[in-house]
Amino acid sequence: MDMVEAANSGHPGLPMGAAVMAHQLWTGPLSVDPSQPEWFDRDRFILSAGHGSALLYGLLHLAGFDLPMEELQNFRQWGSKTPGHPENGLTPGVEMATGPLGQGISTAVGMAMAERWLAARFNRPGHAVVDHRTWVIASDGDLMEGVAQEAISLAGHQKLNKLVVLYDDNKITIDGRTDLAFTEDTELKFKSVGWRVLHCDGMDAAAVDAALAEAQTPADGPTVIICRTIIGFGSPNKADSAGVHGAPLGATELDLAKDQLGIPREPKFLVEDDVRAHFAAAMAKGSARRADWEARMQAYAAAHPEDAATLQRIIRGELPAGWDAALFAEEKADATRNQCGRALDAVAGTVVELIGGSADLSGSTKTALKGQASLQATEPGGRNINYGVREHAMGAIVNGMTLHGLRPLGATFLIFSDYCRPSLRLAGLMHCPSLFFFSHDSIGLGEDGPTHQPVEQTMSLRLIPNLNVFRPADGYELQVAVHQAMTQRTTPSCIITTRQTLPMVSPAGSVNHPAMRGGYVLREASAAPQVILVATGSEVSIACEAQIHLEAEGVPTRVVSLPCWEIFEAQDASYRAEVFPLGVPSVSIEAGTTLGWARYAQAHVGLDQFGASAPAERLFEEFGITPENVVKTARALIR
Amino acid sequence: MDMVEAANSGHPGLPMGAAVMAHQLWTGPLSVDPSQPEWFDRDRFILSAGHGSALLYGLLHLAGFDLPMEELQNFRQWGSKTPGHPENGLTPGVEMATGPLGQGISTAVGMAMAERWLAARFNRPGHAVVDHRTWVIASDGDLMEGVAQEAISLAGHQKLNKLVVLYDDNKITIDGRTDLAFTEDTELKFKSVGWRVLHCDGMDAAAVDAALAEAQTPADGPTVIICRTIIGFGSPNKADSAGVHGAPLGATELDLAKDQLGIPREPKFLVEDDVRAHFAAAMAKGSARRADWEARMQAYAAAHPEDAATLQRIIRGELPAGWDAALFAEEKADATRNQCGRALDAVAGTVVELIGGSADLSGSTKTALKGQASLQATEPGGRNINYGVREHAMGAIVNGMTLHGLRPLGATFLIFSDYCRPSLRLAGLMHCPSLFFFSHDSIGLGEDGPTHQPVEQTMSLRLIPNLNVFRPADGYELQVAVHQAMTQRTTPSCIITTRQTLPMVSPAGSVNHPAMRGGYVLREASAAPQVILVATGSEVSIACEAQIHLEAEGVPTRVVSLPCWEIFEAQDASYRAEVFPLGVPSVSIEAGTTLGWARYAQAHVGLDQFGASAPAERLFEEFGITPENVVKTARALIR
Repeated sequence: MDMVEAANSGHPGLPMGAAVMAHQLWTGPLSVDPSQPEWFDRDRFILSAGHGSALLYGLLHLAGFDLPMEELQNFRQWGSKTPGHPENGLTPGVEMATGPLGQGISTAVGMAMAERWLAARFNRPGHAVVDHRTWVIASDGDLMEGVAQEAISLAGHQKLNKLVVLYDDNKITIDGRTDLAFTEDTELKFKSVGWRVLHCDGMDAAAVDAALAEAQTPADGPTVIICRTIIGFGSPNKADSAGVHGAPLGATELDLAKDQLGIPREPKFLVEDDVRAHFAAAMAKGSARRADWEARMQAYAAAHPEDAATLQRIIRGELPAGWDAALFAEEKADATRNQCGRALDAVAGTVVELIGGSADLSGSTKTALKGQASLQATEPGGRNINYGVREHAMGAIVNGMTLHGLRPLGATFLIFSDYCRPSLRLAGLMHCPSLFFFSHDSIGLGEDGPTHQPVEQTMSLRLIPNLNVFRPADGYELQVAVHQAMTQRTTPSCIITTRQTLPMVSPAGSVNHPAMRGGYVLREASAAPQVILVATGSEVSIACEAQIHLEAEGVPTRVVSLPCWEIFEAQDASYRAEVFPLGVPSVSIEAGTTLGWARYAQAHVGLDQFGASAPAERLFEEFGITPENVVKTARALIR
Repeated sequence: MDMVEAANSGHPGLPMGAAVMAHQLWTGPLSVDPSQPEWFDRDRFILSAGHGSALLYGLLHLAGFDLPMEELQNFRQWGSKTPGHPENGLTPGVEMATGPLGQGISTAVGMAMAERWLAARFNRPGHAVVDHRTWVIASDGDLMEGVAQEAISLAGHQKLNKLVVLYDDNKITIDGRTDLAFTEDTELKFKSVGWRVLHCDGMDAAAVDAALAEAQTPADGPTVIICRTIIGFGSPNKADSAGVHGAPLGATELDLAKDQLGIPREPKFLVEDDVRAHFAAAMAKGSARRADWEARMQAYAAAHPEDAATLQRIIRGELPAGWDAALFAEEKADATRNQCGRALDAVAGTVVELIGGSADLSGSTKTALKGQASLQATEPGGRNINYGVREHAMGAIVNGMTLHGLRPLGATFLIFSDYCRPSLRLAGLMHCPSLFFFSHDSIGLGEDGPTHQPVEQTMSLRLIPNLNVFRPADGYELQVAVHQAMTQRTTPSCIITTRQTLPMVSPAGSVNHPAMRGGYVLREASAAPQVILVATGSEVSIACEAQIHLEAEGVPTRVVSLPCWEIFEAQDASYRAEVFPLGVPSVSIEAGTTLGWARYAQAHVGLDQFGASAPAERLFEEFGITPENVVKTARALIR
């Protein structure tokens, strides 16, 4: 209450209503060690309803994480570790960024799936070195979001029985009572997708304890505890109303609430000594568990040295030595989606934490690892995930597994990257090196038509901060893209591939391939260049053809391939100026929107309208994405 | 089968498996008149699983819509009316574009809600002039998508009992059997959200008829018929397998399938005369119903002339005379979200089909119409919709209601436009003039922090073809944006508003406001301009402040406001060259990504990273979106 009041901004309602259940969880079963927030086998706690951040910060402070009182007092201020919504990387003990509703619970599904996968892969009889739970507090808003419904369904299918969601059922939403728009039978709905459903009075500590205890008993699926709570509990005039959701109580009501709760009005931010002692005692259990785990890891290492070394490597977030030895293989003209499949298989041998799959398009995206089993409840260590037609949950689950140290990939058609865009953005914000593969990347997919043909997607992905977007021109640039994506530690990657065959145009794949710099001169002009043709992906070979014509006409022409703008733009200015010398005009060629290309070119060959249904060659012809049109455009530019 | 084979591309499995149920529906209860595909009181039929387009085209052809055999033979070819996935506007009888899974069923929810709203508003005792059903064929892929789950939940809450979904339950998905990822108890799940659930053997015509009959009996909610079908029915070697989902049968299997189904192998595309006669007889019922409706409309017009005139106007898609009379009211410095609320209320008086609401953020977006009831099952003519925290379904439902002739709006924070992006794109593709209002449009929202602060969203919306994106600088530009959005007939609009107060900088609102041209000279330079400051929204006033400094330093400076790029770019070249004269350098100012701005400027003040949690003024200062930084940037540019 004091935090929100001091900030004059924030959400007191959830913290006040969910305090009891959060307290019982944190001082009860939750297994974390505040002195080592990154301890690998800790329980994961996700406040999916991230607007209740004051609750989380209060818990972290009381539990002894490195979050001093001054940070609570600087809630929502510039430079504080207590932003309006939780952000991992900024605040110790915060597992992920939450706030966009539905993302937290869905990402938690990924964390629980990672835990089970690691346990299946690494635990040995007598050595349960991976054994923890994932706890979530979710709100009605979370449950209304489609991404959450997708993830809940998949979690049930996967029988993730160490995932426990506490549903803060307070019957209040921003615009009023939840029954304005949300009248589901929540119990029945969870049961229909394979969850165990428990109930408790969320304001009654003993009832919460009982439910938490039951939630830890064996089950055939994940558990949701429907906790009936009162939003803004303790506020005599605002509890159980929408008014307490997202605005400070106000000085008078704050005093009255403290009176009702039996807290002195002053000083603000009071934490009494016995509270600190109570939390310290609870957290000591977590520290003991962590110490015990370290001892058990030593025993494990003695008994299973190779497994232990692999697990420790995964925990450190490192790639194995020689992981890329098979990656840079000879390639032939082919669709980059096929080349992508081979590149992934080449890496999968050593990078055992690489997990393939797709949103029900594995045959098309080519992102299922060859010879690997589908990850299922009956095969929890499988290395391909059938996400179903659930692109958004796939994005969140990939993020959750990646935050947990694995390298799963998400894959679908590029057009459907729109369906998981909020999760892609969150990956960037969370510094989470998630892997996404998007095939069928332009009108080149042909007959499926404009509902399936990306036009604006590649550029729109480039707009997202801290996200590397690769559109390789051939199999070698594809290998480079996979290499770059795998080596990222804090940046997610999207690798965009074609349905159609592309000729091989770039040098043989290696760590010295010039595409490693994001953009490079692929074909040099016969003399000082009079024009530059800059292209990506399937249009690079069109640029190469156009160059031949222009050179034949006596126009010295350079071709630049620009597979990854973000990496190119991180190069030093002198390199960039070598590639794009001052004063040399450029033509961009990309089978998508031209908006954005003015950064690199003064004339454009592209597509600023929806596509059409027809064979691909016909479409490139009709929309003028041809060497002839490039030549014409270049001529007009330099005239 | 012949269509897919001739195209050598497409999806035979669904058409073959769903043919029985589709035939029973189309020759049974479906009420359409092929001679008047736009007849207003027709039943709506949505093939949500749009990849089964060959089925829909076959039905339209047999029913006598203007879709000759040549079009079927040109399936998926350039210039045909039979694209790979259905597109409204292109093919008579196609109600909407489907293919991106989940959109069809969700948009259909909007159509059903529109029907009920119109009935509630216009029907009078003895005059049921709006009275039709909405029928959907949906696949497992549709039901897995989050957008569909959101819409299904809201449809149940709204008790839309004239909506009937036929679920093509064929147990096969692209990657194999559905139980790889989808093991929900579908019946229980639909029941949990208030639907009536029926079952039938989808391959048994009589069973389908019985289910269709029962689906038309009174119910307390929408109806789903779970139709057990066999994908690729009739194909001896491919039926009931994923192989028949998305690839032609092949010549041999095609012959064998025809043998099994008792169809002659040759000629291809055979339609026997009795089949035509059978369909003609069925469709005659629809034509009779349409004729009857026209007579009833005349009686209605005689009894209720004003209501009839309004309904006829809505059917024609026209605005009422004088609809904008109250729109251009005097405004004061305020947040554009507040000005937006007033503008909507000013229009709502005459435009009775304007329907407000939001995704549980009405208090923040200010898009609930004042004094109007919430649209609920108990209040089906209410003029505000509580969508719940379901942005994606909101987008689809707005599209569905708009396609049905109403003008509902969707609203949420700009950051969450990402959640409904696939529906925004589809609105553009469908030429559907949907209205979207996105508030809290930048770091100007302050303390909620980077999870809630749009950076790339405004530019990413500009990338979508056929979508007008407005970011008004003040209350008058906001009025212009609302005017422009309301008058669109084939283009959707996004109007982007601020949380924070903006000064009034532009001329008084009117149809002659220069912002009507999308971009204009807001402040002229004291002499021939040496630099142009081009900005949108909250940064226009920053540009105006910077201009004063630059002019004081002796730099003649022009300020251009560019609230709608799409409309500006549709102006003639001479006007655009007046605004941006050749050779005058420009600085762009927008509190978002600079990628894209190179189209108009050579130097940029913007934000190419995630925001932060702090009061808004502090953020503008820290991120350098200030008059001082604009002046500095302009100086460096013209040096």
